[in-house]
Amino acid sequence: MRNTFLLPEIRELIATENRQELQAFLEDLHPAVASEFLNELEVSEILVIFNWLDAPLAAGIFAHLDVAKQIAIAKFARPSEIGRILELMPPDDRADLFNEMSEHQQEKILPTLSSVERADVEKLSSYREGSAGAVMTSDYVTLRPSASAAEAIETLRYEAPRRETIYYAYCIDESRRLIGFVSLKDIILASPAQKIVEFMHTEVLSVNVSTDQEEVAQIIQKYDLIAIPVTDEAGILVGIITHDDAIDIMTEEHTEDIEKLMAIAGTHEAGAYLKTPSLVHFRNRVGWLVGLSIAGMVSGMIIHSFEANIQRLMILALYMPMIADSGGNAGSQASTVVIRAIALKELVPGDIGKVISKEIKISVMLACVLGLLAWGKVLFLSAGSDIPAGFSLYSIAMVIGLSLSLQVVSSAVIGVILPLAAARLEMDPALIASPALTTIVDITGLLIYFSTATYLLGL
Amino acid sequence: MRNTFLLPEIRELIATENRQELQAFLEDLHPAVASEFLNELEVSEILVIFNWLDAPLAAGIFAHLDVAKQIAIAKFARPSEIGRILELMPPDDRADLFNEMSEHQQEKILPTLSSVERADVEKLSSYREGSAGAVMTSDYVTLRPSASAAEAIETLRYEAPRRETIYYAYCIDESRRLIGFVSLKDIILASPAQKIVEFMHTEVLSVNVSTDQEEVAQIIQKYDLIAIPVTDEAGILVGIITHDDAIDIMTEEHTEDIEKLMAIAGTHEAGAYLKTPSLVHFRNRVGWLVGLSIAGMVSGMIIHSFEANIQRLMILALYMPMIADSGGNAGSQASTVVIRAIALKELVPGDIGKVISKEIKISVMLACVLGLLAWGKVLFLSAGSDIPAGFSLYSIAMVIGLSLSLQVVSSAVIGVILPLAAARLEMDPALIASPALTTIVDITGLLIYFSTATYLLGL
Repeated sequence: MRNTFLLPEIRELIATENRQELQAFLEDLHPAVASEFLNELEVSEILVIFNWLDAPLAAGIFAHLDVAKQIAIAKFARPSEIGRILELMPPDDRADLFNEMSEHQQEKILPTLSSVERADVEKLSSYREGSAGAVMTSDYVTLRPSASAAEAIETLRYEAPRRETIYYAYCIDESRRLIGFVSLKDIILASPAQKIVEFMHTEVLSVNVSTDQEEVAQIIQKYDLIAIPVTDEAGILVGIITHDDAIDIMTEEHTEDIEKLMAIAGTHEAGAYLKTPSLVHFRNRVGWLVGLSIAGMVSGMIIHSFEANIQRLMILALYMPMIADSGGNAGSQASTVVIRAIALKELVPGDIGKVISKEIKISVMLACVLGLLAWGKVLFLSAGSDIPAGFSLYSIAMVIGLSLSLQVVSSAVIGVILPLAAARLEMDPALIASPALTTIVDITGLLIYFSTATYLLGL
Repeated sequence: MRNTFLLPEIRELIATENRQELQAFLEDLHPAVASEFLNELEVSEILVIFNWLDAPLAAGIFAHLDVAKQIAIAKFARPSEIGRILELMPPDDRADLFNEMSEHQQEKILPTLSSVERADVEKLSSYREGSAGAVMTSDYVTLRPSASAAEAIETLRYEAPRRETIYYAYCIDESRRLIGFVSLKDIILASPAQKIVEFMHTEVLSVNVSTDQEEVAQIIQKYDLIAIPVTDEAGILVGIITHDDAIDIMTEEHTEDIEKLMAIAGTHEAGAYLKTPSLVHFRNRVGWLVGLSIAGMVSGMIIHSFEANIQRLMILALYMPMIADSGGNAGSQASTVVIRAIALKELVPGDIGKVISKEIKISVMLACVLGLLAWGKVLFLSAGSDIPAGFSLYSIAMVIGLSLSLQVVSSAVIGVILPLAAARLEMDPALIASPALTTIVDITGLLIYFSTATYLLGL
């Protein structure tokens, strides 16, 4: 959804310095929508607007801008201007922005933050990208276990404006170790005098700062959580990750999965096709394509080793692309369903026996249909071809149909073994990208094809 | 995550009729985890356990079982046994289950429900699959706008045990039209005597019962919502969809996207590879494979129209697979990034000009690298091949390298035009599955290859 149609009106408000109306207009919108308008403006225009707005409103909108725009603004603005906004940004978004900034920019901006915010940024941005620590926020509420429900509501009321969620609150001991949690629902249901310790949940689902973000999102999904606490090695509460972060993580991981399946490298920022420079797109794609082209040497060599026989029976060369395509398609389908099942934790490497036997059943059915089709195709397309003496079109059609059937079955089996083997080696199954699989089954397909021809036609 | 290691202990508890310990064991677990244990048991064993458990506990665990297992249990159980559990299930899960049941099963079970639950099931299960109506729950809290904050808290306290979320409450007028909402945070922040109407939000984000579930999930994601209300054509509040449903929808849609990209049809239930019968897998895959095989006739015909020339210069046939593979890989990469960008609403059909110009830049860079590689490959692999008089290996290598370069650029451009055109026609861009694209660019690749050869070699 992009709203460019109202841009002239916004520019008009800027030109006429109509601060009040601009503030009123942006205040009425959800920050996510307001940021869409501002994304279309020049950095200088955005800065003018931010200087006119209340700091909390400016910070809310700023947090929703594209990171590239945020960096451009931070570069252009005076440190004090940007400091005022950063102070009020959600801590996790702020730490993300810092991670994307140059060291020079960071040094320029850090002194404008209060010492508390500075320490927070430095802590949050120190975690490895893709870990729970890098996604978490430090905006959560803690409660003393000895507090009463009534006191807890007072604490929540006081903390609410500053905190990302008040729907879960966490209980910690004197050394800040996580010992329990209560939901706001629990507090509402408790009688006012009841102590937190009496009704807090002590079996707390939590993740470690180093846990992979995809695993965190899956835990939030599995247990329908609004937030999950993050602890360090000593069990000390250091942050929380909220349900909206989980959705964003899943979107990012989806993009990564899909791109990996098609052999595209890179950092997979979701939704950045037009903004990413062509040279970066080129770099993300060229590695795999060159690798596959070099790996294709092997099938080239197999073809050349069979060149003398192809010279005698050129019709065999004409059907090489068909054999290769069918294997690639059948193999990609099989590997795709298995890669997805592994990602959803439905399959583990130990299931390999069950998977292979299932895939053989499925692919034998496919092979019968496709082999028969190929046989018919050869008889129809090559009816007028020159067939050297000693061979018949029927026997050649047979060789091609049979090879194609064998190729479909073997490709499907290879297509499920490779991702399961990758998972066993604790590598990402999606590394068995579809183009890579195509290159591999090209080789097996040619070997099957030429062996079948050699054997059945007596070459 | 599957926990089979404790199964013997559970079976032991069943055999020794140790009801208390079983109840205590399952009560301590999150229902999502408890259901994983029960998924591994026989239907008859599960029924024994459910008869021993409190109805709310049984209903919570039952709601998390696989739908196939739920149906098997419903089939096997006495109507009264299952009715007791269904009464207490979350309404959206219950409606999903009913949709999967046979009409006979539905008729058997409906009479066991109270009239309120029966009406609810019949209403929820009447919506089209994949619409907001089919995903929503009727478990939400409504507030009178004239109530005070203190009264609102009393209402929420009373409703909490039965409602999926009490963190948002919805305000409706006398005809049940949605007129506002308040979060529990708003209520906590308000003074106890303040009336809801004074602080409720009147700009309510809502969706229609017929809105597509994927769009609902994207709205929840964009605005970081915990829940979104669903209204009918008249603006009457009929349900809500919560953040955990949004995550489940995205997982399901992602599985569908990935499978479509690899030309796999079907309903794409997430995580059901081993449970789906082989025949269903076969049906999901065979349609596309047969279609592609038939579409492949076109490339077969092109090859045969060039057969006479290939007979003179057989080396051209040997490099057909390489030309086809490079086009398929480059085209699939390009279409994948564009399909993903459309899904994330970053690109619209109107951007086609910008996308094509970007894709030409990227693919020309790729074409230079890959064309040069192909040229080197021909010189290396075919050094010993028979080249008929009048032709040189260098000129043939040139033809192959140049054709491959042209093929990479044209495939990338076709790969981005097709999904954008599909979006313009309001079809799903992911229909341009990678294997379908491969089949299409096989045709353009062969035409480029044979034309270049004809022109440069004077065939």
